[in-house]
This record gives sequence, structure tokens and C-alpha cells, in this order.
Amino acid sequence: MSERLRQTFISDNVTVAAPEMLAAVAAANDGPAASYGADPYTERLAARAREVFECELAIVPVTTGTAANALSLATLVPPYGGIYCHETAHVMTDECGAVEFYSGGAKLLGLPGEGGKIAPGQIDAAVAYARAMGVHHVRPAAVTLSQATEWGTVYRLGELDALCATAHQHGLPVHMDGARFANALACLGCSPAEATWKRGVDVLSLGATKNGALAAEAVVLFDPALAPALELRRKRGGHLWSKMRFLSAQLLAYFAGDLWLRHARHSNALATRLATGLAALGGQLMAAVDANEVFVTLPEALIAGLRADGYEFYDWPAPHGRAGSAIRLVTAYDMSPADIDALLAAARARAAR
Amino acid sequence: MSERLRQTFISDNVTVAAPEMLAAVAAANDGPAASYGADPYTERLAARAREVFECELAIVPVTTGTAANALSLATLVPPYGGIYCHETAHVMTDECGAVEFYSGGAKLLGLPGEGGKIAPGQIDAAVAYARAMGVHHVRPAAVTLSQATEWGTVYRLGELDALCATAHQHGLPVHMDGARFANALACLGCSPAEATWKRGVDVLSLGATKNGALAAEAVVLFDPALAPALELRRKRGGHLWSKMRFLSAQLLAYFAGDLWLRHARHSNALATRLATGLAALGGQLMAAVDANEVFVTLPEALIAGLRADGYEFYDWPAPHGRAGSAIRLVTAYDMSPADIDALLAAARARAAR
Amino acid sequence: MSERLRQTFISDNVTVAAPEMLAAVAAANDGPAASYGADPYTERLAARAREVFECELAIVPVTTGTAANALSLATLVPPYGGIYCHETAHVMTDECGAVEFYSGGAKLLGLPGEGGKIAPGQIDAAVAYARAMGVHHVRPAAVTLSQATEWGTVYRLGELDALCATAHQHGLPVHMDGARFANALACLGCSPAEATWKRGVDVLSLGATKNGALAAEAVVLFDPALAPALELRRKRGGHLWSKMRFLSAQLLAYFAGDLWLRHARHSNALATRLATGLAALGGQLMAAVDANEVFVTLPEALIAGLRADGYEFYDWPAPHGRAGSAIRLVTAYDMSPADIDALLAAARARAAR
Amino acid sequence: MSERLRQTFISDNVTVAAPEMLAAVAAANDGPAASYGADPYTERLAARAREVFECELAIVPVTTGTAANALSLATLVPPYGGIYCHETAHVMTDECGAVEFYSGGAKLLGLPGEGGKIAPGQIDAAVAYARAMGVHHVRPAAVTLSQATEWGTVYRLGELDALCATAHQHGLPVHMDGARFANALACLGCSPAEATWKRGVDVLSLGATKNGALAAEAVVLFDPALAPALELRRKRGGHLWSKMRFLSAQLLAYFAGDLWLRHARHSNALATRLATGLAALGGQLMAAVDANEVFVTLPEALIAGLRADGYEFYDWPAPHGRAGSAIRLVTAYDMSPADIDALLAAARARAAR
Repeated sequence: MSERLRQTFISDNVTVAAPEMLAAVAAANDGPAASYGADPYTERLAARAREVFECELAIVPVTTGTAANALSLATLVPPYGGIYCHETAHVMTDECGAVEFYSGGAKLLGLPGEGGKIAPGQIDAAVAYARAMGVHHVRPAAVTLSQATEWGTVYRLGELDALCATAHQHGLPVHMDGARFANALACLGCSPAEATWKRGVDVLSLGATKNGALAAEAVVLFDPALAPALELRRKRGGHLWSKMRFLSAQLLAYFAGDLWLRHARHSNALATRLATGLAALGGQLMAAVDANEVFVTLPEALIAGLRADGYEFYDWPAPHGRAGSAIRLVTAYDMSPADIDALLAAARARAAR
Repeated sequence: MSERLRQTFISDNVTVAAPEMLAAVAAANDGPAASYGADPYTERLAARAREVFECELAIVPVTTGTAANALSLATLVPPYGGIYCHETAHVMTDECGAVEFYSGGAKLLGLPGEGGKIAPGQIDAAVAYARAMGVHHVRPAAVTLSQATEWGTVYRLGELDALCATAHQHGLPVHMDGARFANALACLGCSPAEATWKRGVDVLSLGATKNGALAAEAVVLFDPALAPALELRRKRGGHLWSKMRFLSAQLLAYFAGDLWLRHARHSNALATRLATGLAALGGQLMAAVDANEVFVTLPEALIAGLRADGYEFYDWPAPHGRAGSAIRLVTAYDMSPADIDALLAAARARAAR
Repeated sequence: MSERLRQTFISDNVTVAAPEMLAAVAAANDGPAASYGADPYTERLAARAREVFECELAIVPVTTGTAANALSLATLVPPYGGIYCHETAHVMTDECGAVEFYSGGAKLLGLPGEGGKIAPGQIDAAVAYARAMGVHHVRPAAVTLSQATEWGTVYRLGELDALCATAHQHGLPVHMDGARFANALACLGCSPAEATWKRGVDVLSLGATKNGALAAEAVVLFDPALAPALELRRKRGGHLWSKMRFLSAQLLAYFAGDLWLRHARHSNALATRLATGLAALGGQLMAAVDANEVFVTLPEALIAGLRADGYEFYDWPAPHGRAGSAIRLVTAYDMSPADIDALLAAARARAAR
Repeated sequence: MSERLRQTFISDNVTVAAPEMLAAVAAANDGPAASYGADPYTERLAARAREVFECELAIVPVTTGTAANALSLATLVPPYGGIYCHETAHVMTDECGAVEFYSGGAKLLGLPGEGGKIAPGQIDAAVAYARAMGVHHVRPAAVTLSQATEWGTVYRLGELDALCATAHQHGLPVHMDGARFANALACLGCSPAEATWKRGVDVLSLGATKNGALAAEAVVLFDPALAPALELRRKRGGHLWSKMRFLSAQLLAYFAGDLWLRHARHSNALATRLATGLAALGGQLMAAVDANEVFVTLPEALIAGLRADGYEFYDWPAPHGRAGSAIRLVTAYDMSPADIDALLAAARARAAR
């Protein structure tokens, strides 16, 4: 879009809408259509999602990741349930209590862990504690994994196998917060099926907004029997669009011609390019750059210098209200290698002073 | 759009998006933009809304009327509050308990009344009952009025004055469900200010989806001090768009050149044309046709005939699962007089058999 | 207790605690005991309840009828559920939204009906309406019946059969609000089993407070599999006593030697005596006097006279904030025939003026 | 009561009811009384509480600490609020999500800290983080302190001053979970006023059950203006007793003749006696023994031996489902020095093997 070099690395939620997705919305504006999802676009989306994921499923479009996560978890757990997640999970810290709200007061139980990941043994221990506590503690009810994680890392297939097996052993369904699922998929290089239900994932929040949509996410239920309950909650949450086709059309375009994966591969590659460049300048990477986020420690002067040059990004752990020496840089599908190279050049210049 | 005659009179939520509003979305796709409403479109919308309503206010865009209503009322009432509404109000019967959900279990207290309207004396009596009951009854907390009503009628300014005065006398704020606010305004022929805060309305759910948007509504808070609480609830409800500009741009286009009023006047006029024609055929109007809905009693054979001819509409009170002798016909901004005349011709032909 | 004649007929919740129940509490104070229901009294109560109701069940003691009702219904319905009840049901008008609160915002759907009773056809119609509305309406989820009703009438066994059959046909469990269950049972003259699960009742709120306890009610679950969920909700609601034995002991005493039925028969008989006497004075009974409540229309002067004589009772429908010509008089287990006769004598004296 | 030596040190919630409190209940059973708190005992309790705390206040009796805490916090915070507490606080881990439930999904934010205590700087940092996060994070809304703490320590007056000042500086009210408030008071040796509102505490959950009641706790609101909202929530939560006098009478007896403080001093002294004895045996105290709980590390064989001798207590951090080397021993008002000495003798015998 913009001719100017892109200077904001603050998030992938500042991106434009992909032209293909905008065009799909315009194309769906082709006359009156049955409301609330009874339109042909929404029907087509269901079929398309079954192809993409190679299984029976229900797909429920919504407009924000917060809605997708909260609806998913509220459908899986009772109000007196406990949900195990990483202590930095988006649901835990960034959604203003949406899961608590939608679930009627269920409790997110944060677990620590390197690189934003949790491990099966932590779930075992937490469940054992809860079982011993009986009615005094919330009842273990679900596990939610962020894929990619909040630290830009990606759970490997074996890690997912182990986590899902442990969760299921305790009777807990597994939710995956896939706000950046396409980036994770691009990293893993496997099929959507292999990355999800074949590992044991029960419900997926599939993000599209950060990766090209105007505003479109979807809950993917690998057990379609959960759909009626989730759809009632969607209505009740005010997330049932009358003109649903405008949402469904975005998601159809997202899948068409593997747009989602092309976007994700592009932003992942840019992140790697960026990380490599910063490491060469002495930056310490705080986590593996598996997806489209770079967490890096740099000299404070260099960070301040980049900001003075017009670059935008968060200190991390964000937000501290003060410049720290660790920062998060997010690449996106609508950036170019030139944008990355320009930042690296600026960093080199600043470092040279 | 469609060249074909429009045969669905089932709702104004099946309409296309207005070209002006779709174009505004495309135009807002002009490069990265600050997320969560910190973009220039959202800022401009706030200024524009102040001009439109001629007062200080806060405007909070969301995507569904259910969200607008539920967020509004949850902000106004405590969980132990009672909300007075007409027994047929959309919040009461058509939103799957959204208000109960968002408010933490507040209670909608339905009052009967001709033409979908409630009267001040009913509020007085209900509040007196509640006060006498003390802690055993929910505490009177708000009044919500549908404008236009579920019966297609429009409260006159004097009626609003009396209702708001009564509500305020009891310390109750007034919410207006304006899913069809533009149609009401077109009927009243007054300014937005005269139809709302000058009467005593405290919070307005301003609908745009039925009248031209892809999906855009807004909560208009005439007391801007309520905004922070409502905005936290919006986030928590999953209704805070990261790419907010695509919502705000729709609403800017809605107000531009009085598009909203032109649309509403058009659909209102079509409803009058339809009602007049059906009355000439012996149809009994069940309520005044103030806005864009016609509730009419017709011979069952005629109703069946119209359906056989391809026309779509609801029996009313809907839904009964069986053809009744009363129906609801909804006109919309994207219909033409020819669509109306064709239905009337079909009705005349059926009546003549 | 008091030597003085009893002049308050305002409710059976002003009664003293029965000496037998108070003694049982004192007797249970016999040394340290395992907390949270792991004590011998609570164990004994479970066994006793199985004998009383002649079936497998779970019994969960709490201290108020509001808690029993709200916990029962919250366990039976999802937050997006609709609960059918009489429009005057205690849960609807007298519990400050407890069911909405405990259920996470489920909706009570009030049905009209003579004598506080609802009929199977009303449930059929309401469910048909809801089904046709789909996700826009709360989903039919349960039926709750008050036994005795708010009008002091008692559903007959055949009425219960028909209501439960209809509810179950629609997949709805049946809850019975038995705040005055003992009075209903005394009226019906059948066994507890015949009055409940043999009719199709799934969950019973069993009241004891109005009929002799200090504060003791119980949820009786005829499907014990519901107990774990209800017990977690009880804990979460703050209703799990650490020293549970003091609750269980009350209920054991309630059942012992049929104390509950002896109390109920006594208060029912007093109500009949009262109703007969007032009818002889020209009072019009507003509903059958099946239990321990008399709803009667009397001349305003007579009502005012009784109040001047020191008698206390509610106008009905209460509360209106003004003396009406219909009143409610409640008898109780701790009143004597002399109390009734004194009121009748006072009424006769007033009527004679 | 029991002649036998007391062998359970598992909790102070297994205690008998104090004879004085049981007698008070019986004495309150003196005839019909106005329901729902309009009785003379409840009125007297309000006056007595004002004397005890030397200020205007509202006192709201309930029956469990969970109810007192949840009602208190729900009254203080919005559903989108964050509540700062110690990560081991009872509200956090032992109340099955009661605060989340009563508040409509507010979030408890656990802070670490030695001896179960939090420090002002932690609140500062957490609030700064939340403020920077804006609508994405729950809004800072309250601080809750356990006094005595979950580790049996007691905040000193200066600590309370600093915590309350910090909380208030950020606009956060302070709640005190005083399940063992009497024990804390006995430790501090100051007046109830000096331990609470003079420090800045806004709301107190005052426990009595662990210290002698059958089941009685109270919310003490130092701002009586909060009472109406809390009372509506109490009703809605099913915690408003019709025969309230039986609750109020217990609390009147609790205060009479400083029964509460005599009990607390006694159990505190027994804990000190126990701790001293165990330390002499080589036990490592894990926290200061300020109140009536002893957390101590002992050889595993000694612990197993005590259990073999019939002693009951929790491993700590409890529960692990396995014998650990740290345990919690709780003394209570109804134990005697002989009970302590017997345990110490048994421990010495085991240690000597």
C-alpha cells in the first residue's frame, strides 16, 4: 500500500486488509442474502474448512481473537472450572477477563515456562493438587495452548502430542489459541490437520485478522457436536452477524490459494531476517524466532536511537512505562524485506556512533 | 444491485451493504494504522457524532445491535438491577439473554402495551412494587425503549418526554434501542438531538446494519463519563476491533451527506406505499406504519398465495411454525417502488381469484 | 412458646425454631467433627433421606430456600437456558435475581395461570415458540413448579404427572420449589416418593425453615450423578458449611417421628379453620386453601379494623404500599387453634360494628 | 466436651460450638420475630459492632467466610476489575472461584511474598503494569489482605499502614479477610479499630466459626453507604436468613465478655507452646507463629510416627497426596495445654526411637 518504508514493528494488528480479502467482501455484496449465517458464503466456508482440516468439524466465524478464545473456553468448561495456560497467555493478561466473563467466572491458572511454553508435568502436578483439594479448588476443566506462543515460539508436533495426551488423560479438552496459527503452521511445515486434531487439539481459535483480514477469526470445533452450545453463546455474546457473509467471505479468501500460508511464510521469513541482522549486531535473542516475532535484548542507547529514528515497538515484558533493554519487534505480511533492511541499517548506524 | 425484483420482505437485515459504506471501508485501507481505535477514522467519528447530535458524547462502535444493547444496559445497571421494557422488546425475546449475560444476571421486566409502546404509569406502578419488596426484588435500575418499536411504531417527542421524566424521577437512566433509529428519526422529522438527549435519553444504541452497513452499530453515550466502563466491557466482550477504522469508516459514511436519513426516508416511504396498497385490498393494519414495517391481517388464502408466488415474510407474532393470518412485511433502503408495486400486483391477482 | 396470642399472620418465616430441632443442634455439639460434610450426622442424613424418599438420591443441605432453588436450577440449565415457571413464582419475583445470578444469566419465563398453577399446554406453546426462534431466544432448559404454590394451592398428582410428562417430552428436567413441601405433602396425603420422583420430579428444594428449622433447607437430587456439579456450585456460592453437622442435625430431627408432617398437618388445619371462619363472615377466598395460606377478599373496613386490633398480614398481590381489599394470612406450625379463633372473634366483632 | 485428648490438629474448623454461643441461639428462640434482619437481635448487633469498632459501620451477618469474602469483594469491584492478593490467599486457592462468581468474573491477581504477606512495592508495580495495558488488562480495583495470613503470620500495624496507603493512592479499597481476625487481634494486642479502619481497611470479613460459632461470620463495612448494594447481593446469593436472629445472636455472644479474644488468646498461646516444643525437638519453623497455626519441617519418620499415633494434620503446602516433610498444625480455642503436651510427648517418644 504505502510507498513509505514501514516503521512500525509494534504489532501485526496494525496491518492493512489484504486486497484479496477486501475484494471478497465486495464480491459478497451481490444482493439480499439470508441472515445469521444461512447464506451461501457461510455454507461454502464450512465445506472449505472441512477440506482444509481434512475432517468433520464446525467453523464459527467471529471478529476478534478475544471472542474466539472466550467462546471456545466457555463452551468447554463449567463456571467452576480451572483452565491451565501459560502465565503469559493472551487470555490471561491481555483480554480484560474475557474468559472469566464468558465462562461465568472460571479460573485461568497460569503456569510458568521457558519461551512461553508449558510442559505436561506441570499439568500433572496442577491437576493432582486440584484433585486433592476437592470442592475447595476449581475443578480442572481444560488446557489452552497458544500457538504460536506469546514469545513467538512454536510448539513442535511432539510437544503437542505429549501435552494433549496428558490433558486427555485427566479428562481435559485442549484449546489452541491460534491468533497466529498460520505463522505456526508455516513454521511446522505440516498440514493443518497434522498441527491440530491429529495431535489431540479439540478446539482451535483460528486467527486471520493479524494475517490479512479486516476483522475475521473463527472457532474451529473438531467435535461438531459442540457447535449448538457455542452458537447460542455467540448470539448471546452479540457476535452473531446478521450479514454473516461479509465475515465468511473473508475467511474463504483467506484459505483461497493458500493466501494465509503465503502471508505467514512471508512474515516469518522477515522475522528471521530481522533476528539474524540484530544478532549480528550483538542483540541477544530471548526466545527462538519460530514465527513473526523477535524478542531481543539490545543496548539501551541503540533502542533509544531506533525510536528517535521513528521506529515503533514495545519494551518487553511490555508494558513497563519505561524504555527497557529488551524489546519486541513484530513483522507482518504487508511488510517487505526493504522495511527490515532499513531498520537494520538504522540499527547499524546507531550502533556505530 | 440485483436486477431481479426483490421478493424478500422478511427483514431489513438481509440487505446489501450500501456502496458508499463499502467504498469507505476500502478507502480506510490506506496503510498501517494504530489499533484498537487510536486511528484517525475513529477520532473523526467522535467529532462527527458530536456534530450530528450537537452535544458532548462518547461513541463506541460495535458490530451488532445485540452487543450495543447489552453493553449499554450492563454499563447502566448493577447485576441485581431490574430493567423495564416492553414485553416484546428485542432485548427481551430475541437476543438469547444477552442483557442478562452482559449485566451479570440483571432482570428484564416486560410491560405490556399497545403498538409496542410502554407508558409512564406502568413504570410508576412497577417501581412502586419493587420498592415495597425491598431486597427481595431486583432493584429498579433502568428503562429501555425501542425506537422504532418492535411493532414499527415510533414514540412521539411528547411520549418520550413523559417516559424519560418518569424514569428520571425514579432515578432510572433511559436507554434507547435504536436498531431502526434512522427510520424513527425520518418519521419524527426532527434533529437527532431533539429525538434523544433533549428528551432525556441517556444512552442510544444506534443501528446502521439494517440501514446500509456491512456490520456497524454504535453505543452513543450522552454522558461521556460512562465511556471508560463501557469500553472495558467492550474489550471483555470481545467487541474491541484491532482494526477499528473499518468500523468507524462505515459510520462516517453513514452520516456523510445524510445517507442514513435518505435511506430511512426511502424505506419508510416504501412501507407506507405498501400499507396503503394492502389496506386498499382489505388488509387490517395492526399498528401504525410509522417506520419501515407493516403488520397486517390478510386472508389466509392471500397470504399462502403470496408465498406461492415467491414472497417471503414472517407470520406475526412470529414465529409460530404455522401460517397465521397476520404477517410482518419489512421494507428496506435497497428496495424500489417497483418491488412494492409488484407485491401489490401479486396480492391483487391472488385476491381476485 | 409465647403465652400471648399470636397476632402475626404475615409469614411462616417468623416462626420459632422447633424445640426438637434446636435440641438436635445441641446434641450434635459433641466434640470435634470432620468438616464440610464428612461428619456422621451428614452421612446419616443421606441414609435417612433415601428411606424417606424410598430411592437413591443425593441430599445437599443449605440454609435458605433461595440458595436451594438457585443451586438446583443453575445445575440443571446452561446460562443460555430458559426456565418455565408461573409468573408469580418465588424465583421470579422474590429472590432478587438469584436464579439469574447462579445460572450465569439464564432467563425465567413466567406463565400466567389460575391459583398459581401452570398447565402442560402452556409449556408446549412456549417451547414451540422458542424452538422456532432458534439461537435468538434462550433455549428451553427446565420447568420449575412451586409446591405448594404461591397462592397456597397444591398441584394434584395427576397435574404433576401431566406437567412432568410434557416437560420430559421436550427434554426439560423438572425442579420443584418445595419451600412448603411438607404442607403440600400433608394436603396430598401420599408418600414423599409419590409426590416427587414417581411423578417425574428431578430435583426438589426441600424447605424446613418455615416449618420448624432454625435455618435448614436441602436440595434433593433424584439423580445422584448431579451431585458433584451442585456441590461445587454450593462451595462457590459460599453455602458449604464447615460445621455441616449443625445443618444436617436439624434435618435429621425434621424427619424424626414425622415431625415435618405433624407440623404441616397442624398448620394446614389451622388455615382451613381460618378460611372457614372468614368465609362464614362473607370473605371471598381467592384460591383453594390446600396448604397453610389463606388469600381472601374482605371489606376494607374489616381489614383496617383487624390491623387496628394488632393483627399483621400482607395485602395481596403484595406489596402495593396501600391497604387493598385482598389479604394473605399465613398459619404456622407454632400457632394454636386459639390464635385462629381469636382472630376470627376479632373479625366478627369488627364486622358487627 | 470430649474427655479424650484432642488428636486432630487439621484445622480450627472442626471445633465444637462454644457453649455460650449455642446458649445464645437457644435464648433467641423466644417467640415469633420479624424476619430478614428486622428483629431486635440484629438491631442490637449493629449497635454492639459500632461499640466494638468505635465507629459508624454496617455489619452484615452471613454463615461462611467464603460468602463474606465474595460478597465483600463483589461489592467493591466491577466485573472487569483486578484484585491484588497474596498468591496463597484463601480467596485465590480455596474458595472454588467464589470471588470470580460473585463479582461476575473479576480477576484475582496473586503476588508472591514471604510468610504469606505482600508488600506495597508489589502493588505499585502491578498497578503500573495494568495502567500501561489499558483496556486489555483488568482494571486495578481492590487489594485483599488475609489477617492472620495463610501462613499463620500477622501483618503488623505499620505494614498495614503502608499497604493501605499504597492501595488508596491508587484508588483501590482494601478488604481484609479476617477468618482468623480474632487471632490476629490477640497477637497485635491493639483495639479492633486500631487493627482495621484506623489503618485504612475499608471492609472486613470477620470470622467467628473457627473461633467458636456454629456458623457465623460477618461483613463489616466501615463505609455504611456500601451496605444497600451488599445486602442486595446477599439476598441474591441466598445468604439472607429469614430467621436472622439465630445468626445475630451468635455474634452478640461472640463479642460478649470478650469471648472472641479470650478464645483467640488461648489458641494462640497453645500454638506458641506447640511451636516451642517442636523447635526444641529440632523442628524448623517455616513462618513466625503469630496466631494459631504452626508450619514446621520435621523428619519424615517423625511425621509418619505421629500419624501412626493417631494425630491428624496436613502436609504443607497442602495437599500433595503424599507425606512431605513440612506440616501444618492448627490449634483451637477448644483445645487444652494437655492436648499440646500429649502431642509433644508423642513426638519426643518418636524422635527418641
